[in-house]
Amino acid sequence: MKRLKCVVAYDGTLFAGYQVQPKKRTVQGEIETALKKLHKGADVKIIASGRTDAGVHAKGQVIHFDSELQIPLSKWDIALNSLLPDDIVIVKTEEAEQDFHARFDAKGKEYRYFLHRSPKRDPFSRHYAFQYPYSLNISAMKEAIVHLLGTHDFTSFCSAKTEVEDKVREIKEIELIEDNGELVFRFVGNGFLYNMVRILVGTLLEVGVGDRDPESILDILDKKDRSYAGKTAPGHGLYLWNVFY
Amino acid sequence: MKRLKCVVAYDGTLFAGYQVQPKKRTVQGEIETALKKLHKGADVKIIASGRTDAGVHAKGQVIHFDSELQIPLSKWDIALNSLLPDDIVIVKTEEAEQDFHARFDAKGKEYRYFLHRSPKRDPFSRHYAFQYPYSLNISAMKEAIVHLLGTHDFTSFCSAKTEVEDKVREIKEIELIEDNGELVFRFVGNGFLYNMVRILVGTLLEVGVGDRDPESILDILDKKDRSYAGKTAPGHGLYLWNVFY
Repeated sequence: MKRLKCVVAYDGTLFAGYQVQPKKRTVQGEIETALKKLHKGADVKIIASGRTDAGVHAKGQVIHFDSELQIPLSKWDIALNSLLPDDIVIVKTEEAEQDFHARFDAKGKEYRYFLHRSPKRDPFSRHYAFQYPYSLNISAMKEAIVHLLGTHDFTSFCSAKTEVEDKVREIKEIELIEDNGELVFRFVGNGFLYNMVRILVGTLLEVGVGDRDPESILDILDKKDRSYAGKTAPGHGLYLWNVFY
Repeated sequence: MKRLKCVVAYDGTLFAGYQVQPKKRTVQGEIETALKKLHKGADVKIIASGRTDAGVHAKGQVIHFDSELQIPLSKWDIALNSLLPDDIVIVKTEEAEQDFHARFDAKGKEYRYFLHRSPKRDPFSRHYAFQYPYSLNISAMKEAIVHLLGTHDFTSFCSAKTEVEDKVREIKEIELIEDNGELVFRFVGNGFLYNMVRILVGTLLEVGVGDRDPESILDILDKKDRSYAGKTAPGHGLYLWNVFY
């Protein structure tokens, strides 16, 4: 029995999210269906670094699973990709240690959030970036970012729906990349809570348009209450970019 | 009565093409439906610079139509875009001369064709670029391009289904732009026949992989027979980029 580790990319547009749900099209469901075909009808369970919501994309999701198939390592991608739908691709397959765990061993993650800055819709980015028509004070946003970096209790930046108890996380980097009408938010941290990146983006945008002061971040963190932070930015601008082990 | 000229962009993925067809979702159909709503139920016919096929995109399609509505010029885009689906956007509206004709007055067009050069599918470009896994001899393709430039009878590069009689066209520019795993073909000419850009791309790719000599272009042009040219490249890599008047 081998433990295999795959890097997976997917366009989240047509999925109800990563995790299997009854009667919904999910990323996990499609990959497990492909693995089942490859294993002649035997169920193969996959474990991911974490879930992604409906509409959220991935460039570098990581999964693991066990298999007894004698497929050369270099052929795994080809075998799986031939059975997967067009909107999921296995980017890379490696053999992992027997006790490797895609979720528990993850040391950190990178997310990116894409903003299409224009008063006008763009048909080509409608599923891939959040269209944002208002002008932004980037330097105010950068001031706010300074208060978010480091280790904090991010309860205020977490969906109230979560079941996780320990809400302390470390954000190592937040970068704003301006590029030709796009603004990309790049987040690197040791882990992110449910909806955390989207709430961070929503709150930073409220700073950018002047609805909040950069210093208000300190107060939001202090309150440990979701209602003090900004709106949750829509899922279709978000990409799970990389998982670090 | 005013004649209005609009620049229109659309993602061709979910359309059966530009032109109205019974029971199919078309770009023309969606724009005429929006105009009908705006004109309180009165039919408004639009004329485009030309058709695009199923799956083909547009960044700069041009249409014209006549209207008696007293909408300020700067508000036309907003009014129409609020009634159009997400995959079509009116980029710009201008008032045109009374006798302006989007098709007959077009002096030239620019098309671009996007190739995603990789042995692996990319979920994000699956509808927006043609995935091409083979290595290409770009300098051989550039030699072939020299033979295509200028004024020629392009019968061999035109779908046999066409009804157009005069197949002489002038290609002013063909540029190959290599960019980070993508190859973009840029075509500028006074007009293009049915499927012409896609057949040109298909034939140039056959030169690129070494299945044809660059000089074979001279023979293909000479033969005036579609069967001598290469395969028609798929529609989803093609963009009507610009129409010149």
